[in-house]
Amino acid sequence: MPFLTSDPAVSLDGFIAGPGQDLEHPLGIGGEGLHRWHWEQTEENAAEIEAICSAGAYIMGRNMFGPDRGEWDLTWKGWWGDDPPYHAPVYVLTHYERDPVEMQGGTTFHFVTGGPEEALRLATDAAGDGHISIAGGASTINQYLRAGHIDELRLHVAPIVLGSGEALFRDLGGLSFEVASSRSTSLVTHVTLRRTRG
Amino acid sequence: MPFLTSDPAVSLDGFIAGPGQDLEHPLGIGGEGLHRWHWEQTEENAAEIEAICSAGAYIMGRNMFGPDRGEWDLTWKGWWGDDPPYHAPVYVLTHYERDPVEMQGGTTFHFVTGGPEEALRLATDAAGDGHISIAGGASTINQYLRAGHIDELRLHVAPIVLGSGEALFRDLGGLSFEVASSRSTSLVTHVTLRRTRG
Repeated sequence: MPFLTSDPAVSLDGFIAGPGQDLEHPLGIGGEGLHRWHWEQTEENAAEIEAICSAGAYIMGRNMFGPDRGEWDLTWKGWWGDDPPYHAPVYVLTHYERDPVEMQGGTTFHFVTGGPEEALRLATDAAGDGHISIAGGASTINQYLRAGHIDELRLHVAPIVLGSGEALFRDLGGLSFEVASSRSTSLVTHVTLRRTRG
Repeated sequence: MPFLTSDPAVSLDGFIAGPGQDLEHPLGIGGEGLHRWHWEQTEENAAEIEAICSAGAYIMGRNMFGPDRGEWDLTWKGWWGDDPPYHAPVYVLTHYERDPVEMQGGTTFHFVTGGPEEALRLATDAAGDGHISIAGGASTINQYLRAGHIDELRLHVAPIVLGSGEALFRDLGGLSFEVASSRSTSLVTHVTLRRTRG
């Protein structure tokens, strides 16, 4: 079995995006506060940032890949420019078929219409000895958590309250973990959780 | 100005009690999981447990003091037996007057009908050089957070999802802190937050 991780940045009240997401506010109102540690304390958080981008393959939801819906706009190649930070195959869950898009630096976006289990099979084949990271968004991570697939949930907890938005743990009452480690800077607490078994 | 702290145990999704609180389930369904670190890892968490009970005075809501509502049942003297863990004055917010109740070990319960600001004035006079701890429950801590009174919020984050219940941060969207420190054992991540000013 592959080893699955996920690295959501989350508020104190469990949201990974604020309310009112749109093109101008892709993270919702206040949601950019979830990522200040990443941009303002890059050096201090270098180890965690590197770990986020160390997987052998990634899975993400279509809404994380881009804002368009329905039939593909083939000019859209993700938010990340010509050289995305993944440097590995990325499996994008979608209901609309599309040919793979090869970017610079080793990132290739593959579009999977067979559902999350199919994406997991493809990512497992591609990852080799590497682990698989569920990149987001909320509903995609939520789905793999619900299925019991995520071995290590590495929360990056920003010390802010969003009040509403995309809830990472929606309808997951009863789920429990054990804490493997934690570390903080002034803008984030990194908490590594492992799924409790049995 | 007095220094205010609060030490809520909270789930990953921000609840300090589960759904369905009643006499049989004072912490709601699943809520006892928030406190496993306290009872099962007492030694490992001795520093944090001691800090919780180090205030010069405490403030709590009536619903934390006991299950009865309306006119007082004078035989009820709290959940904690003859020698409660506070060893200091405890100001209980209520709409019903009652004479102070002196317990063993230095704990005296005072009943305050003048509201949270009045309780804060009384606790400040009583605490001397000590700090004041807002003991709970959720709505009492929430109220003092909203008023901007809590200087240090010491979250004890249990690695569980409750899904619903008493939300610590209800209607507090926009609140932000900085992380002063964190530390974990397998059953809890202790996160000390300080209110950001200005």
